[in-house]
Amino acid sequence: MEFDLIHRHFKTPFGPLARANADTVLLGIGDDCAALQISPGQNLFTSTDTLVEGVHFFSDDAPRTTGWKALACNLSDLAASGATPLGFTLNLSLPEVDETWLAGFSAGLLEVATRFNCPLVGGDTTSAGLNTLKTVSITVFGQAAASHRGFNRGHAKADEGIWVSGTPGLARLGLLLEYQKRGRLAECCRGAELQKVQALLAVLPEHLVRQAVSRLEMPVPRIELGLMLHGLASACLDLSDGLSGDLAHVLKASEVAAVLSQTSLESIWRHLWPEIDQHADVAGLLKTLIAQTLKGGDDFELCWTAHPRHRDAIQSLGAGLHCVGIIEQGSGLWLRTPGEERKRISGTSYNHFAESKN
Amino acid sequence: MEFDLIHRHFKTPFGPLARANADTVLLGIGDDCAALQISPGQNLFTSTDTLVEGVHFFSDDAPRTTGWKALACNLSDLAASGATPLGFTLNLSLPEVDETWLAGFSAGLLEVATRFNCPLVGGDTTSAGLNTLKTVSITVFGQAAASHRGFNRGHAKADEGIWVSGTPGLARLGLLLEYQKRGRLAECCRGAELQKVQALLAVLPEHLVRQAVSRLEMPVPRIELGLMLHGLASACLDLSDGLSGDLAHVLKASEVAAVLSQTSLESIWRHLWPEIDQHADVAGLLKTLIAQTLKGGDDFELCWTAHPRHRDAIQSLGAGLHCVGIIEQGSGLWLRTPGEERKRISGTSYNHFAESKN
Repeated sequence: MEFDLIHRHFKTPFGPLARANADTVLLGIGDDCAALQISPGQNLFTSTDTLVEGVHFFSDDAPRTTGWKALACNLSDLAASGATPLGFTLNLSLPEVDETWLAGFSAGLLEVATRFNCPLVGGDTTSAGLNTLKTVSITVFGQAAASHRGFNRGHAKADEGIWVSGTPGLARLGLLLEYQKRGRLAECCRGAELQKVQALLAVLPEHLVRQAVSRLEMPVPRIELGLMLHGLASACLDLSDGLSGDLAHVLKASEVAAVLSQTSLESIWRHLWPEIDQHADVAGLLKTLIAQTLKGGDDFELCWTAHPRHRDAIQSLGAGLHCVGIIEQGSGLWLRTPGEERKRISGTSYNHFAESKN
Repeated sequence: MEFDLIHRHFKTPFGPLARANADTVLLGIGDDCAALQISPGQNLFTSTDTLVEGVHFFSDDAPRTTGWKALACNLSDLAASGATPLGFTLNLSLPEVDETWLAGFSAGLLEVATRFNCPLVGGDTTSAGLNTLKTVSITVFGQAAASHRGFNRGHAKADEGIWVSGTPGLARLGLLLEYQKRGRLAECCRGAELQKVQALLAVLPEHLVRQAVSRLEMPVPRIELGLMLHGLASACLDLSDGLSGDLAHVLKASEVAAVLSQTSLESIWRHLWPEIDQHADVAGLLKTLIAQTLKGGDDFELCWTAHPRHRDAIQSLGAGLHCVGIIEQGSGLWLRTPGEERKRISGTSYNHFAESKN
């Protein structure tokens, strides 16, 4: 039965993509190992992530979005390393054979795999028995020129700009909306913060609600951007734990401080939500938006540091790339207010072992 | 907390092995991706496996043996492809932070990693909440000369010999002993088979009991053998589902039949258990041993086919390599008795979706 399942939902639908990449996928699903050809002068890049039902996705999420997200979040790690996708493996542990779920999951997975030309090359499927959680592990492989050793987190230096792509925090809004829909918003924020978040969600325009949910459910890995940042970015990572928590890794590894500009972060939100200025409490709404941006969100946008001389080159890469702060000597993460005041930001990002999901 | 855990049980103990392989591990644990250097003219080989508590290992198994087995069974896939290990990634999903289990698991994992020079290069850890099952996914990477595209399962041809290393079925005996110890033997075999297995286990000599349990708990991947089989083996795989089930994959992919020699299979058991001839029912015991050898067992020995002209070259590779049958035109798996009678063997190997563990 296992072989039938693998055939119907994985080997058959993913076959054409593997065959279209026959120059790199020498041996695919079905043998003990997959064999991949790395191009001459290229290094292998690999990353792996597990999604557990109830922790990383909701039990009632559409299987298509779970499939999409499972591969997209791994491809995002390749993006943050400036690598081109080569293929991926999939491990599925399921409580029982659920054909409807498998078909939807496979379809979402195939959409991302096709879009980023990333063939499925191997994996396994386990039935763990009733009352267990669906668990999805994906490992992606990519390549990049041997001269490019990735964007090391320890390579941020004082005076470099801190850049982000897109609108970090958007996926966090999507998550808050999903929790609110389920009447579980209090699991994400407490006390005064809960009231502020409720006030924010109450006035979010419909277009922002749609974008936030879409970003949460079907984030788009920034593969092309990662490739364009070769030679421009020093440190780089993808935003999966919120700006504060993710930047903290760079600051620790590079032994530097970061100062984020409140004005710059506000202008990103104002750009996406121009109507915000018509609200009486625009300052309060922006403050809540920035707090949530710092706190969490599986945005899978990139965040990188770059020498000031690269500013124009980066701006010319396309719209939606924002310089939101600067690296300084010292330690800690700081927010510079419009009045040039500095506030220390404490790390409040996602912690698997502290909260179930937020 | 997650980062502390990863540091204490993985980054710190596995650090020296990664640093000793700094020429291949360019970027290891801690960044978005690991970066690995594939040697010029080599292809990448990769394989992935998930072990789920209660399905692939017992809840009360020593964590050291679980760690050992998790990596060993993946390395065995590299062995079956004739590849040299480069590194591996690890995904852990745990019900809660269990320091004692993590320490033991990490120690077993490190033993195998060190023995086969296979550094840990990345991974993630998830707390899935109380009452969930421990789930371990490992993906291994290896390399082999670009001229070697693995031993394709579809490459077995008529008149080739069928070879096995070691004593396939030994791990199955180990499993039966473990189930017997837990009073759950009836979950592995039923009716008349259960009685025969009980009769067999009752007379197993102590040295065989020790070897069987050791093979089950700490199987040794045949990496060196896989490398030596380059140019000699046609089809090759590792025995993880029992001789019958695993050979069935080769027969299906190659569109051939296989005839196993009862005498050859008996002589492997007689070699390991010379005292068996002192038992009154030696024929019955051997029959039960062969039935179990065909039926299951995570032996992680290799099984391959080879042209008759390679017979001497294979024999000269070392002791413990046995020709146990021959590939023929046609279909199906057959057993040739000493009286030259042929019996069809039906596939009865492990099926994840049919039984919980056997």
